[in-house]
Amino acid sequence: MFVFRPLLSRRTPVCHCNAWKIIEQRSYQTSCEALIYRRHGPYADVLKLEHIPVPYTGHDDIHIRMLAAPVNPADVNMLQGNYGILPNLPAVGGNEGVGEVIQVGHEVNSIKPGQWVVPIDCGFGTWRTEAVCKANEVIPVAKDISVISAATLSVNPCTAYRMLMDFVTLRPGDTVIQNGANSGVGQAVIQICASMGVNTINIIRDRSDLSETIKKLQSLGANYVITEDMLHNEEMANLFKVVERPKLALNCVGGSSAGNLFCHLKDGSTMVTYGGMSRKPTPLPAKALIFKNIRLCGFWMTQWKRNNLHDPTKLMTMVSELTEMIRKGQLSEPSCTKVPFCDFSKALQATMDPHTNKHVLIMN
Amino acid sequence: MFVFRPLLSRRTPVCHCNAWKIIEQRSYQTSCEALIYRRHGPYADVLKLEHIPVPYTGHDDIHIRMLAAPVNPADVNMLQGNYGILPNLPAVGGNEGVGEVIQVGHEVNSIKPGQWVVPIDCGFGTWRTEAVCKANEVIPVAKDISVISAATLSVNPCTAYRMLMDFVTLRPGDTVIQNGANSGVGQAVIQICASMGVNTINIIRDRSDLSETIKKLQSLGANYVITEDMLHNEEMANLFKVVERPKLALNCVGGSSAGNLFCHLKDGSTMVTYGGMSRKPTPLPAKALIFKNIRLCGFWMTQWKRNNLHDPTKLMTMVSELTEMIRKGQLSEPSCTKVPFCDFSKALQATMDPHTNKHVLIMN
Repeated sequence: MFVFRPLLSRRTPVCHCNAWKIIEQRSYQTSCEALIYRRHGPYADVLKLEHIPVPYTGHDDIHIRMLAAPVNPADVNMLQGNYGILPNLPAVGGNEGVGEVIQVGHEVNSIKPGQWVVPIDCGFGTWRTEAVCKANEVIPVAKDISVISAATLSVNPCTAYRMLMDFVTLRPGDTVIQNGANSGVGQAVIQICASMGVNTINIIRDRSDLSETIKKLQSLGANYVITEDMLHNEEMANLFKVVERPKLALNCVGGSSAGNLFCHLKDGSTMVTYGGMSRKPTPLPAKALIFKNIRLCGFWMTQWKRNNLHDPTKLMTMVSELTEMIRKGQLSEPSCTKVPFCDFSKALQATMDPHTNKHVLIMN
Repeated sequence: MFVFRPLLSRRTPVCHCNAWKIIEQRSYQTSCEALIYRRHGPYADVLKLEHIPVPYTGHDDIHIRMLAAPVNPADVNMLQGNYGILPNLPAVGGNEGVGEVIQVGHEVNSIKPGQWVVPIDCGFGTWRTEAVCKANEVIPVAKDISVISAATLSVNPCTAYRMLMDFVTLRPGDTVIQNGANSGVGQAVIQICASMGVNTINIIRDRSDLSETIKKLQSLGANYVITEDMLHNEEMANLFKVVERPKLALNCVGGSSAGNLFCHLKDGSTMVTYGGMSRKPTPLPAKALIFKNIRLCGFWMTQWKRNNLHDPTKLMTMVSELTEMIRKGQLSEPSCTKVPFCDFSKALQATMDPHTNKHVLIMN
């Protein structure tokens, strides 16, 4: 008999962070269900729903009942062993989600039973019905937003927020251009920019439901929605007679989609890459770097959280600001499909399709 | 009759900076020879040696006798109209060089007759025998270094210096990797790094005189010299058992040469691009940006000078430090061919060949 428990190693934050400690002889209070993998591979081969023991709540622990946890593409990459960091095995799947605190250790003052919490770090293993962890491994989240909003707050909206705040100073009237604009991050970018008075030029693939997608993004606050093909069009020059050239480009596609952006950017602008959906490298012309002084950076929310583990107030401030946007109706709950926890295979299968809705496992 | 004189516009620093003012009715004291072009095109079609008047030295002017001026590839690009900034025409060619002050206006205190000076900004028009300019358009340079060292100090060594100082903090034992390592900038990078105790990994094209080139670069202080092909070799892994992975990459080639560097760089490193000799875009993988947190920037010495026109002390400090390195034997005079001014065609022709020696026009 053994118990899974997250071990967040801070000495080796990149390689061993997702490790799970197997506590052979620790006493336990009950058991819960969890999606566990013991080797890397396709989810259908490696991910199993198992009953695992829940340890007693120690003096600085909290006991959580998980409410909901999304299945993100990065979770699937992690299962397959194809991600920037990987857990020691066996591991519980899932990195994002919200839980309700049902018990706290006698030394815990920062969190109270009844509160909702989200994990601070990647590798929490959110695909389970209960968890016992240290109180400092989570932060509280408000209960007056929907369970789905809370469960999906920590990755996509946080990624959008940081990319808009950390690389250039955006002022009302400035412009951001992004590809993959219909993605979860893309939709959050549109909404956060709209709330800041920042214009967005949103590039999407041509598709059968193009006009509905354009309408949907415009309803979120997108100023301009254009297809990849239109980016070559001469009309782009006319566009820049009425809107400032972008000082920030957000790229989750790579390949020619990203390469086509350089000629539209303002001198001295920054392109932040946070994904590579086309699986092709971005062709980067020397002239863009030298004569237009364009700077290229990457952003990885997981690494940002790692870099800020010592000071969770930065994460708490961001979550608090995003929560306030949700309350004001500026940031909507992502469109998603709710799947009972026991039907996890359906959610995993759907996440393999890049054009699908987000799927969220519901635990209760 | 008209006089050419540089007009350095600071209100429109990028587009009109290289303009030349035609002073129709100003009195002049004598005439000089200058290489003038009245339209853009191949040098043989557009560049002519002409006699032009030298205006009287005004109260805040200095009168210079040019001593030597190199022909750099960027000068040829500028003649052809293929460069990031272009002069108003007609223009005198040449952007770098050293002159001796022969007369100063009565309000000039910063510079004295007999001193050597180099232009502060791009677009001085150094290919001429004499010039009258404002005293604040040049800075003094020491006379105890060779004319060739002084004439070739402002572009290549300054580019190398800034790229090593401005993007990452280099400490003894750190490593810099560069392609095009046999270029003028590349050789300056090797020598400045050697003086700082910083290791260099120097990538060059395979060539007929490979062993001599390797020996030459090693004699300048290169720690490792490897060909593009060797970069794929498994031995690279062994190299990084004895030397730190690079935290700075300098790229003047682009294409696959630059793309091949990403897997060898340290996490969190920076690649600075200052040229694109292959004329091919760099294939940039998303993983390098996201998971290795590699940052890409461009560097253009011309723009740096423009950005610092308000405060020439930064340029003077750099020139002074490089001069001190020359005195100490840490930075050698570039290997070059001296060409009498009247044989300018020979120097221009040679500069069209990227594998040639640097050619320097000698005015006296």
